[in-house]
Amino acid sequence: MDQNVVSISQDIRDMKIRGAGRIARAGADAMGKFAEGYQGKDMAAFRKDLDEAVGVILGSRPTAVSLWNGVQSSISGAKSAGSVDEAKGIITANSARFIAESNEAVHRIAQIGAKRIEDGDTIVTHCNSSVAIGVITEAHRQGKDIKVYATESRPWRQGILTVNDLSKAGVDTTLIIDSAVRLVMKKVDKVFVGADTITSHGALVNKIGTSQVALAAKEARVQFYTCSETYKFSPISLEGDLVKIEEREVSEVVRPGEIPADVKVYNPVFDVTPAQYIDGIVTELGLISPGSVYDILQRKFGTEIMKE
Amino acid sequence: MDQNVVSISQDIRDMKIRGAGRIARAGADAMGKFAEGYQGKDMAAFRKDLDEAVGVILGSRPTAVSLWNGVQSSISGAKSAGSVDEAKGIITANSARFIAESNEAVHRIAQIGAKRIEDGDTIVTHCNSSVAIGVITEAHRQGKDIKVYATESRPWRQGILTVNDLSKAGVDTTLIIDSAVRLVMKKVDKVFVGADTITSHGALVNKIGTSQVALAAKEARVQFYTCSETYKFSPISLEGDLVKIEEREVSEVVRPGEIPADVKVYNPVFDVTPAQYIDGIVTELGLISPGSVYDILQRKFGTEIMKE
Amino acid sequence: MDQNVVSISQDIRDMKIRGAGRIARAGADAMGKFAEGYQGKDMAAFRKDLDEAVGVILGSRPTAVSLWNGVQSSISGAKSAGSVDEAKGIITANSARFIAESNEAVHRIAQIGAKRIEDGDTIVTHCNSSVAIGVITEAHRQGKDIKVYATESRPWRQGILTVNDLSKAGVDTTLIIDSAVRLVMKKVDKVFVGADTITSHGALVNKIGTSQVALAAKEARVQFYTCSETYKFSPISLEGDLVKIEEREVSEVVRPGEIPADVKVYNPVFDVTPAQYIDGIVTELGLISPGSVYDILQRKFGTEIMKE
Amino acid sequence: MDQNVVSISQDIRDMKIRGAGRIARAGADAMGKFAEGYQGKDMAAFRKDLDEAVGVILGSRPTAVSLWNGVQSSISGAKSAGSVDEAKGIITANSARFIAESNEAVHRIAQIGAKRIEDGDTIVTHCNSSVAIGVITEAHRQGKDIKVYATESRPWRQGILTVNDLSKAGVDTTLIIDSAVRLVMKKVDKVFVGADTITSHGALVNKIGTSQVALAAKEARVQFYTCSETYKFSPISLEGDLVKIEEREVSEVVRPGEIPADVKVYNPVFDVTPAQYIDGIVTELGLISPGSVYDILQRKFGTEIMKE
Amino acid sequence: MDQNVVSISQDIRDMKIRGAGRIARAGADAMGKFAEGYQGKDMAAFRKDLDEAVGVILGSRPTAVSLWNGVQSSISGAKSAGSVDEAKGIITANSARFIAESNEAVHRIAQIGAKRIEDGDTIVTHCNSSVAIGVITEAHRQGKDIKVYATESRPWRQGILTVNDLSKAGVDTTLIIDSAVRLVMKKVDKVFVGADTITSHGALVNKIGTSQVALAAKEARVQFYTCSETYKFSPISLEGDLVKIEEREVSEVVRPGEIPADVKVYNPVFDVTPAQYIDGIVTELGLISPGSVYDILQRKFGTEIMKE
Amino acid sequence: MDQNVVSISQDIRDMKIRGAGRIARAGADAMGKFAEGYQGKDMAAFRKDLDEAVGVILGSRPTAVSLWNGVQSSISGAKSAGSVDEAKGIITANSARFIAESNEAVHRIAQIGAKRIEDGDTIVTHCNSSVAIGVITEAHRQGKDIKVYATESRPWRQGILTVNDLSKAGVDTTLIIDSAVRLVMKKVDKVFVGADTITSHGALVNKIGTSQVALAAKEARVQFYTCSETYKFSPISLEGDLVKIEEREVSEVVRPGEIPADVKVYNPVFDVTPAQYIDGIVTELGLISPGSVYDILQRKFGTEIMKE
Repeated sequence: MDQNVVSISQDIRDMKIRGAGRIARAGADAMGKFAEGYQGKDMAAFRKDLDEAVGVILGSRPTAVSLWNGVQSSISGAKSAGSVDEAKGIITANSARFIAESNEAVHRIAQIGAKRIEDGDTIVTHCNSSVAIGVITEAHRQGKDIKVYATESRPWRQGILTVNDLSKAGVDTTLIIDSAVRLVMKKVDKVFVGADTITSHGALVNKIGTSQVALAAKEARVQFYTCSETYKFSPISLEGDLVKIEEREVSEVVRPGEIPADVKVYNPVFDVTPAQYIDGIVTELGLISPGSVYDILQRKFGTEIMKE
Repeated sequence: MDQNVVSISQDIRDMKIRGAGRIARAGADAMGKFAEGYQGKDMAAFRKDLDEAVGVILGSRPTAVSLWNGVQSSISGAKSAGSVDEAKGIITANSARFIAESNEAVHRIAQIGAKRIEDGDTIVTHCNSSVAIGVITEAHRQGKDIKVYATESRPWRQGILTVNDLSKAGVDTTLIIDSAVRLVMKKVDKVFVGADTITSHGALVNKIGTSQVALAAKEARVQFYTCSETYKFSPISLEGDLVKIEEREVSEVVRPGEIPADVKVYNPVFDVTPAQYIDGIVTELGLISPGSVYDILQRKFGTEIMKE
Repeated sequence: MDQNVVSISQDIRDMKIRGAGRIARAGADAMGKFAEGYQGKDMAAFRKDLDEAVGVILGSRPTAVSLWNGVQSSISGAKSAGSVDEAKGIITANSARFIAESNEAVHRIAQIGAKRIEDGDTIVTHCNSSVAIGVITEAHRQGKDIKVYATESRPWRQGILTVNDLSKAGVDTTLIIDSAVRLVMKKVDKVFVGADTITSHGALVNKIGTSQVALAAKEARVQFYTCSETYKFSPISLEGDLVKIEEREVSEVVRPGEIPADVKVYNPVFDVTPAQYIDGIVTELGLISPGSVYDILQRKFGTEIMKE
Repeated sequence: MDQNVVSISQDIRDMKIRGAGRIARAGADAMGKFAEGYQGKDMAAFRKDLDEAVGVILGSRPTAVSLWNGVQSSISGAKSAGSVDEAKGIITANSARFIAESNEAVHRIAQIGAKRIEDGDTIVTHCNSSVAIGVITEAHRQGKDIKVYATESRPWRQGILTVNDLSKAGVDTTLIIDSAVRLVMKKVDKVFVGADTITSHGALVNKIGTSQVALAAKEARVQFYTCSETYKFSPISLEGDLVKIEEREVSEVVRPGEIPADVKVYNPVFDVTPAQYIDGIVTELGLISPGSVYDILQRKFGTEIMKE
Repeated sequence: MDQNVVSISQDIRDMKIRGAGRIARAGADAMGKFAEGYQGKDMAAFRKDLDEAVGVILGSRPTAVSLWNGVQSSISGAKSAGSVDEAKGIITANSARFIAESNEAVHRIAQIGAKRIEDGDTIVTHCNSSVAIGVITEAHRQGKDIKVYATESRPWRQGILTVNDLSKAGVDTTLIIDSAVRLVMKKVDKVFVGADTITSHGALVNKIGTSQVALAAKEARVQFYTCSETYKFSPISLEGDLVKIEEREVSEVVRPGEIPADVKVYNPVFDVTPAQYIDGIVTELGLISPGSVYDILQRKFGTEIMKE
Repeated sequence: MDQNVVSISQDIRDMKIRGAGRIARAGADAMGKFAEGYQGKDMAAFRKDLDEAVGVILGSRPTAVSLWNGVQSSISGAKSAGSVDEAKGIITANSARFIAESNEAVHRIAQIGAKRIEDGDTIVTHCNSSVAIGVITEAHRQGKDIKVYATESRPWRQGILTVNDLSKAGVDTTLIIDSAVRLVMKKVDKVFVGADTITSHGALVNKIGTSQVALAAKEARVQFYTCSETYKFSPISLEGDLVKIEEREVSEVVRPGEIPADVKVYNPVFDVTPAQYIDGIVTELGLISPGSVYDILQRKFGTEIMKE
């Protein structure tokens, strides 16, 4: 097995590589490196080895639609190549293009989202989304006077990362606990969060607590935007697949011995924000309504989805 | 200055004595001990010393309506006594009665609230309210099969205390982070929380995050109850006084050096849940609507309030 | 055992006497007849026999608060009478007064409620409430041009009774199935329903489907009124008692053999309409808010409730 | 007929005396002047003349509950006086007391309401309510930094009066058209309006547009307060009486010839804000919930209402 | 006139063939049989006879969009055929394909919808929709532990059919009256219903009571799905056509003599559920948002619609 | 500079030409006239002059998306023409086609929208939208018995124009002040307004007050339709551009001296109605959901947008 594939998949598994966008690019990168380093000449063997490598990568985070998209985009067309060399060429080109487009998408989203932010705005963000932070820092870079509340985002407290990112960019930032979101919401103009997955019927799957922020925004008539590259749009949700809400370790929430043995800990990673609570999805293709996700899935995947 | 008064006021200040009910009883207790230990015989001096002692106690938590009630109930009538001995007798009797009634109120609320819980119910509680826990454990003691989600309640994580209390009582308990409330709410039947203060127009002031729990309950049509002894009803709110939302130390939220120096931390202690989100207030006088708080304030304080 | 008591309790059990108001008056009547027909002279025996008679009557509908009120009002003060004759006199007087006041209350409510109806109004009513019908027919009698939609009210289809009552009074009446309530609601101005029980925190317990009508009214900004004599206000709800939702026979919903044996039928009698969906409660003491129920319970029962 | 009575009633009719509070005091004043100037000595004649004077005054604005209260308070007890002189004394004393208490109530409400306003608040007010303006200017006087949006309040444009009042008091004021309320609401913290009438079930009858402001406040989670002396609470609403929505002249809305003859103009004076949209009622007796109006009506009028 | 056409149209008229999907296939079948049995050779006559047959079939249920779609799909291209034989071939092929695709769509929807159902779910269904039942029984077949509440669906009580269907498939089923939907909703996870028509702006036209179920689902945050083959999407709604709410016979609701002659009965067949209450539409093309209906109509009918 | 271009741009600036549709046609017309009147033969000079003319026209109303669309449609392809004559031909043809299609669109929308109106409907319209008025008068022309409430629409009071238009068409019309919208809404069936701009995520930018009307419609479950030619759909909103809410002169709201100098006047022209409040958008391409705007923008502008 290719060492790059093994090590990248391990880093994803260990949360060293985190975030839907970064995972997608890592998956594409792994495929590119696999192709570059491949030594054989036999197409049948190549196809088998490729499948194996794909399996290893996808297995590192089986529920991540962005990873699936990064990998599939990279190997698209390779199996029907005339030769291993041709296949390798296809994959390295695909992989490089996916990574470039993904980075470009982050940049495009920052440009588009920043336009939604007005001078004087107060913003809430949740967890540590690089696209959402990109939007906010771009607005700041443009000279807009803005103020941000960043949630702590228990249990991993990625809010600490977020306030460091925003501080580095010079943004006026305040950290709050997750329970204080509704209290500050009255003074807030807009919410910007990232996305792990967006389903075909417009629901947002994202870090636990996101739907609670959206609910508080709805209550106070605050605009709620999710920032999402379109490769986070889930083609299998079109087939009805529920996004599985991953549960993680008790140890992320409590220290050993802190609670009695009979007390359970429920530690879900994501929650689902319904389409009705989302004012707009900022994608690299533009600002859209949750009602337009199906349309974009069709344009991206066309007749290839919903086939088998 | 009486040493008991000094030491009790210090314990309140240091959060060794916490919780609206416990603080109220401690305040009454301090007044009782002050009276018991008082040595002088001159009424004028007594009145002055009493005022001073009251000032020390109330100053330990100036915004706590329950403390004010505990202290005022204890000294009611003492200043117009014919002699210091008579005054001392009045205060010790008042103090003992307040403490007894307060404990009885907790017991009464447990009985009343437990009737609202049905076999098979799933309950959410927030923070560490002894009255709310009393209701839940009483329902369990009556043999009802119930399940409880307790929130972690950052930043002090009183949820750890709560799951210990519930586990000790044998209740099936699950700890969740504050961000997971909306996710579990679909499976929940009722919410029971405590109260720091209840205002004359039926709003609930309680631990930060309470209003967010109430909002999620509202969204999912889950009944929301607050458990409150009537001495937590605020007479000064009738005069329009806003309950001041105390802010506490940054150090409760982040460790030194964890965040850049220019990042602020907003750490409010309470939030306000509007009357429209409260299905019922469980008091020792019965289950009431938020619309009935004024009525109870009138019965308790009659013409004494709204005078000056 | 007194024959009147036995026969009235049997009629209640068999649904020959139905409706919260009619049951209350029947209970008072039974107590009056018991007293009138009582032959003994020994107070101790009288007390025991009275308790037994009360038990028989209350047992015919153990969850009906109006029955409890009718019976308790009738026997109030009798047990501490100096002689059996005196006790008999007290009960017959109480019973007659309760019945007279109950009838007067229906009349008062019709007068008060009718004022809420304007010329040209379209009204929805549900089930077969004599107080609600009293309000509607009084408005018609006053010459107001009104139109009524009456629901069928499955499973017993009391809507058939209602349209007969309204037709007899000359009101323009249309029968609809229960599923059509939301469809017609856009054209409706006000909803008037009766009440089985009203709780201390302002919730309405009434015929199954009532809360669904209230929800549809809320959605379309239609005013929702419940008509209720104050003896339907539940003192024990103040102690937290949940109103038990009675379940009735499968045979009321399906004919034998109509459904497979493994299919269950859930046939609840009542549902609960939350206080937030009720614009006003029309009582014989006036039009009040759900937030004022506690106040009226206090005025009616004073210190007698919440004692043991 | 007493000339003062005639002239005051004419001024009310001509809108020279406007506003529920001012009308009430004018009514009381008219009664006081009637008594002062009365020359006869015969009680029977006095009673008849008094009734006539009352009729003239009440007829100048038959739907104003505050006027009714001002007049009734002034003549209370006069008819059963032993002599005309005694009756005159009673009325002049009553009248003076009502006026003094009414002015005191305005002052009390300003004190209580001002406490609800925080430094930095932005406020919306509608029409030209002296109590609401009293609250706002008192908050300003206390040194709070506030900002006010005042609506134009078509058709009479009383907003012009309001911005003059606020400007005189030194308040930072912005005038907006009635259609701009929802647009500015996102930046608003609290709404303060007056009251023409408050009903027994907690609804607010006030200047047309008030309920629209309340709706926009509700949507944006902005607190909505009405300021109301308790003599604007309507005892007859307890009997079910609907507050009649007065319609006024076409000429208040359009100039002659501005619209075709077949176009109608609907020009209602008031609308009704439901209790669910009101966070608090600021009265001279304190800040209460709409659910407490019945309670106050009971305390004020006791057994006298709901009698005939 | 072809006998198959006559008899099928009669069966539709008599409700022997019911349900939007079954009607559509029957219409296609009738066209196929018409073509098969056609004897003439003259194209002009054929066109005229075809038009007549189409008219007879469509006239059996003039408002059913699925019937229109089944018939139009079957005859598409036939009129411009070079010969009657060619036209017959086109129609029989079209008809067979429509029926096969329609059956396949039911199967696809069952697969897609079943994925939305999780182990332990409680589901509500209304009326007797074969696609909705297909989804539920497929989830059960996959071994998921589910529980279903089926509404009686007055007046025709198709709920009886539904509980028979579900019982046959082994699903744990409970029948409830239509008025009990809100009461059970608190325990429900998802609603699955069928569709008669779906409009271009995402509204659902379906059996009377559907919108009431959707409203109760919304109130309790329960997901609401409609299952619909895309041939139930209405192209003429794009042109603004309102779906006509058919009214049916009084005799379906009451027995002769049961109500007075002057009492009307309003017996509508359908109601309209707004797009905002629909979480997802399960189609054979995937799970979509109501906002994507226009997109699918465009893909299906392209430039052919909105032409004349 | 072409005189037609100058004079048309001046008329737009002076509000002589108003309304998004009329402005768009005027812009197209100006381009057509510019082309017709152009004398030169040099393509480079032509391109420069064309750019200048475009600049003058667009500068007359820089935020109007319809104007941009009218102008761009007219000059599309002209710059790459082989000769000035060819370019002139292209522009005059484009201009004529845009104007014809725009007029046709108004007609199509009237046809489509009128179908949504039923006999007996009461309708609200706001401001003076020719498309919305077209829908209403078409419904009236078809013989439907309808009634319209038209708002005054301060500050310009375009409601006066609207009631004149409707009266001329014979429609039963009532003028109301803007504050009376919520009061009449209970009697209203549908709202029809125009559109200045519709964004890619389905929000409606229109005359100030529109969102308030939409909110009142939502509260009372009244259907809200906006009528919009698709050239009012904003391609740049897809890039995130906020529609700038133009502020206009104080003098439109108050007369000189009417208010103190320190009182500000905030006079915004537009507000934004969120997609969730819009039941349908009536376009010349059919009745669509706000979720379908992106789809139509794609079909209209395809790959041309979101490029640079």
